[in-house]
Amino acid sequence: MHAYRSHTCAALNKSNVGETIRLSGWVHRVRDHGGVLFIDLRDHYGITQVLADSDSPAFAAIEKVRAEWVIQIDGRVKARDAALVNPKLPTGEIEVYATGLTVLGEAAELPMPVFGETEYPEETRLTYRFLDLRRDGMHRNMMLRSNVVRSLRNRMWDMGFNEFQTPIITASSPEGARDFLVPSRLHPGKFYALPQAPQQFKQLIMVAGFDRYFQIAPCFRDEDPRADRSPTDFYQLDIEMSFVEQEDVFAVVQPVITGLFEEFAPHKTVSKDWPRIAYRDSLLWYGSDKPDLRNPIKMQVVSEHFRGSGFAVFAKLLEQDGTQIRAIPAPKGGSRKFCDRMNAFAQQQGLPGMGYIFWREAEDGSGTEAAGPLAKNIGPERTEAIRQQLGLGMGDAAFFLGGKPEAFEAVAGRARNVIGEELGLTEKDTFRFAWIVDFPMYEKTDDGKIDFSHNPFSMPQGGMEALNGDPLDVYAYQYDLACNGYELISGGIRNHKPEIMFRAFELAGYPNSEVEKRFGGMVKAFKYGAPPHGGCAAGIDRIVMLLADTTNIREVIMFPMNQRAEDLLMNAPSEPTNEQLRELRLRVLPKDA
Amino acid sequence: MHAYRSHTCAALNKSNVGETIRLSGWVHRVRDHGGVLFIDLRDHYGITQVLADSDSPAFAAIEKVRAEWVIQIDGRVKARDAALVNPKLPTGEIEVYATGLTVLGEAAELPMPVFGETEYPEETRLTYRFLDLRRDGMHRNMMLRSNVVRSLRNRMWDMGFNEFQTPIITASSPEGARDFLVPSRLHPGKFYALPQAPQQFKQLIMVAGFDRYFQIAPCFRDEDPRADRSPTDFYQLDIEMSFVEQEDVFAVVQPVITGLFEEFAPHKTVSKDWPRIAYRDSLLWYGSDKPDLRNPIKMQVVSEHFRGSGFAVFAKLLEQDGTQIRAIPAPKGGSRKFCDRMNAFAQQQGLPGMGYIFWREAEDGSGTEAAGPLAKNIGPERTEAIRQQLGLGMGDAAFFLGGKPEAFEAVAGRARNVIGEELGLTEKDTFRFAWIVDFPMYEKTDDGKIDFSHNPFSMPQGGMEALNGDPLDVYAYQYDLACNGYELISGGIRNHKPEIMFRAFELAGYPNSEVEKRFGGMVKAFKYGAPPHGGCAAGIDRIVMLLADTTNIREVIMFPMNQRAEDLLMNAPSEPTNEQLRELRLRVLPKDA
Repeated sequence: MHAYRSHTCAALNKSNVGETIRLSGWVHRVRDHGGVLFIDLRDHYGITQVLADSDSPAFAAIEKVRAEWVIQIDGRVKARDAALVNPKLPTGEIEVYATGLTVLGEAAELPMPVFGETEYPEETRLTYRFLDLRRDGMHRNMMLRSNVVRSLRNRMWDMGFNEFQTPIITASSPEGARDFLVPSRLHPGKFYALPQAPQQFKQLIMVAGFDRYFQIAPCFRDEDPRADRSPTDFYQLDIEMSFVEQEDVFAVVQPVITGLFEEFAPHKTVSKDWPRIAYRDSLLWYGSDKPDLRNPIKMQVVSEHFRGSGFAVFAKLLEQDGTQIRAIPAPKGGSRKFCDRMNAFAQQQGLPGMGYIFWREAEDGSGTEAAGPLAKNIGPERTEAIRQQLGLGMGDAAFFLGGKPEAFEAVAGRARNVIGEELGLTEKDTFRFAWIVDFPMYEKTDDGKIDFSHNPFSMPQGGMEALNGDPLDVYAYQYDLACNGYELISGGIRNHKPEIMFRAFELAGYPNSEVEKRFGGMVKAFKYGAPPHGGCAAGIDRIVMLLADTTNIREVIMFPMNQRAEDLLMNAPSEPTNEQLRELRLRVLPKDA
Repeated sequence: MHAYRSHTCAALNKSNVGETIRLSGWVHRVRDHGGVLFIDLRDHYGITQVLADSDSPAFAAIEKVRAEWVIQIDGRVKARDAALVNPKLPTGEIEVYATGLTVLGEAAELPMPVFGETEYPEETRLTYRFLDLRRDGMHRNMMLRSNVVRSLRNRMWDMGFNEFQTPIITASSPEGARDFLVPSRLHPGKFYALPQAPQQFKQLIMVAGFDRYFQIAPCFRDEDPRADRSPTDFYQLDIEMSFVEQEDVFAVVQPVITGLFEEFAPHKTVSKDWPRIAYRDSLLWYGSDKPDLRNPIKMQVVSEHFRGSGFAVFAKLLEQDGTQIRAIPAPKGGSRKFCDRMNAFAQQQGLPGMGYIFWREAEDGSGTEAAGPLAKNIGPERTEAIRQQLGLGMGDAAFFLGGKPEAFEAVAGRARNVIGEELGLTEKDTFRFAWIVDFPMYEKTDDGKIDFSHNPFSMPQGGMEALNGDPLDVYAYQYDLACNGYELISGGIRNHKPEIMFRAFELAGYPNSEVEKRFGGMVKAFKYGAPPHGGCAAGIDRIVMLLADTTNIREVIMFPMNQRAEDLLMNAPSEPTNEQLRELRLRVLPKDA
């Protein structure tokens, strides 16, 4: 017999009754039923019930066993009495009568239990991560993640992509976030950087002729802590393809993502129809560039109904340039109580409030009546025109926000979420995807300058010609995949022509020399025969979070940092030795230096 | 039609004749055959011949095209004349008559050509890696690597292993080599480290109950440059299993590696019989702990034949403690010329030389005669006893080395290689594997202290009891897989019992406090129910090098550093900005500080 086990703790069933077997695992739970000891023995695969009575030569030893000890049990498989069969366990038809016990690893008193799903402070969970990971929920999350990554790889291979590893110790390349630096010992005073993403490398791989690349790529950004992101590193499914347009990238991503979500969320609906929504429409309709389309509410511009109306606040507002009035339709939201609650929500979010109209049965029985202060101010004709534009009726409501869209769009988006949730309009158990397209290439910064609004490496729609007009009118071949209010994927068709790239950067105020300095490797490569190419990157942690139904990224990472970017188990970061600093020719300055 | 291509450059054949098609790719070669222009158009998939004559509307444009431009060709598929069919190309039966050309990406004058396999200085190749990678050999190496990694993953999954990602920004854990450090911005003065290997994390994963782990893991060591290793990072197939003994690990590895080598070296023989050779036997027999078993030569101890013999050098040597005489049998090496050459080889390697005996036909026709100075000195009886022990005969030779084995073993191993090669004894086109086992746990350092000879985390054979005897008699459950003179895999059954671990370190001079400090996370975990576990790590770069038949690691890495740990394409390492240093509270000291 094998030194440690003849079967795993999920393997035994009725067909094994009578066999002499050996199991190893963790003591999940011990129960003493009046002279009969029961142990739930747990391993990676499952749980088997072990028992011993005073006739068992192992009884005395088993009496000493405590939760989370690792033990080895020799015994015989017995059928359970029909009444005691547990249909929830694969091993629920049998139990093992223990004849021998070997302690493989004792456990000290536990700082947190493994059995049960009691909530424990995150500091404790991270300090004793090896115990936390034994818990059923965490174990399942880690297996989910492992299987998701495996499935993504297989799907990419099946689509004809090859995985290549790009360097992790590499050059600093300012792409937005801060780099993590790595001091060089062989070249003291010089530093490597960890890649924020393999962006330049994957583009170089295209220039090198490899047509279809993917990688489950570790990415590193020295960012300030936030609940839903890892403060140090994260993984992305990184994709790049040559000789493609935007729709070719979509044609690869959609089956991969749809298949993945169907595989790992079999009880949920996965939308097959992925609309393409222009970035500016998305902001207008949903108040967000990552809209939650489970929520059917679509906002609309209703400025004309308020222009010169009796509602002075909006009428005056509209006299200023760049202002709008937008409506959030709220079907079934037609009660003063609900409308007041939403108005209060807007105030909590920092706005003066949201005006509203709701439609109820007229007290005199004459049919539908519009209620709310706004309706009174603008009069029945305008109110009716609004109702018709929004397609609302009795029992519905509409909320109104006015001003410069940038100032209220985000709150409008959040209000839309809350309204959809509270009114039960938002679908449950569904993943709804949409491509957000036509991102503006440039934006005006607060000081009136022109800067890239998103990815500087994207090809401007219309190429060089477009760059000779108003920069603010230029759209980029750039796209995001939104799902249920999250951005899952971001990508673009790249600017592979050096002359267009230099011009694009020039418009944003970067001279050629700066481009050469920052992205020298890539720019050089583009001068020696670069194919048109594009791709995208999908956040693995985010995908697993959605599938695991959690909003805490640390629930889907095996050994995460805490929110202060510390590893409490391994004790990182820590003080270097003097020897290490000397070899790197570095000195740490005092705090007030 | 698609914007860039209707087919790849490997797709067209006779069945497409007459079709209007579109191709995109790189200009591999242009030839002008008297008014007819031929272009070999290349992409990731293959090459298609394109032609244009003066009747073609694209003729004038095609005349301007140069090597490595990226172009798009519109044209018609034509069958080639029977005499011009190229059976080596999948597209060799057809050519494309160009009717249109679009230049997608021009190329400046090339610093190195892509066509042909001319050797270029490595500095040029790395500076223009995107061109170097377009060359056929490099393209094949990268695809080989990608496919090897894919196959390894699939094989591990098929064996029931799960891949988990371990942290890359983590704690310093001195495991032998130097760590790369990463300064923390949020905790100035403190540093993270990049993992030399996920050793502690994979053991923690076992303690967390995940039974069978693997990872294609990036590892980081700040090592001084050497030709056959990357100066910064490398990849290993990292494996760990719970509830296993050494043979269980072997039973997983052998089918994975055998299958892999059979898949990617179909024209070579892959040994199925993997002997287990004790570390000390390996040194004795082969002069190396990573023997090349394609070479049948096995060294032997022949001290007794020289003790008190007429060969004074060896006879005197044997009077000293710890000395031995060893023989390298050299079948078919029986000529004075060969023996003298090998003697000279030993002298080049820093030894006084190698004595030898060879057996030739006696001049008087009386049969076999032993020749060489040694034979004369020790006389015919001893010479004959040696011949019998070594199983040699007419036309064979034997070489002799004496002294403390440590002093001559390595040279003996190299001499064995040269003898095997020169005499044609070493098999060709074969991969021969062997497990090297029973590594000593401890060794005596030069200053007479006891230290770990290899991995301190391995379980001593005999457990705690063994640690109470002479440390130098303790073997570890530790093993290497040798293949053709390389170490491909290294691993061990781990010491999962804190008390045995503390004792093992104590013997090597480390107090408990030091162990807690260095390996605190793991030691803590072992106190809360640790299963017996073990595993190994296989060098991916090394495996691909063997399969690609190269000894230069930079031939199998997409974007390698040069031997001074510099990335010539991306310009790393480089000077940090003052802002970066300020944020990290670091100062770079001047050279002479």
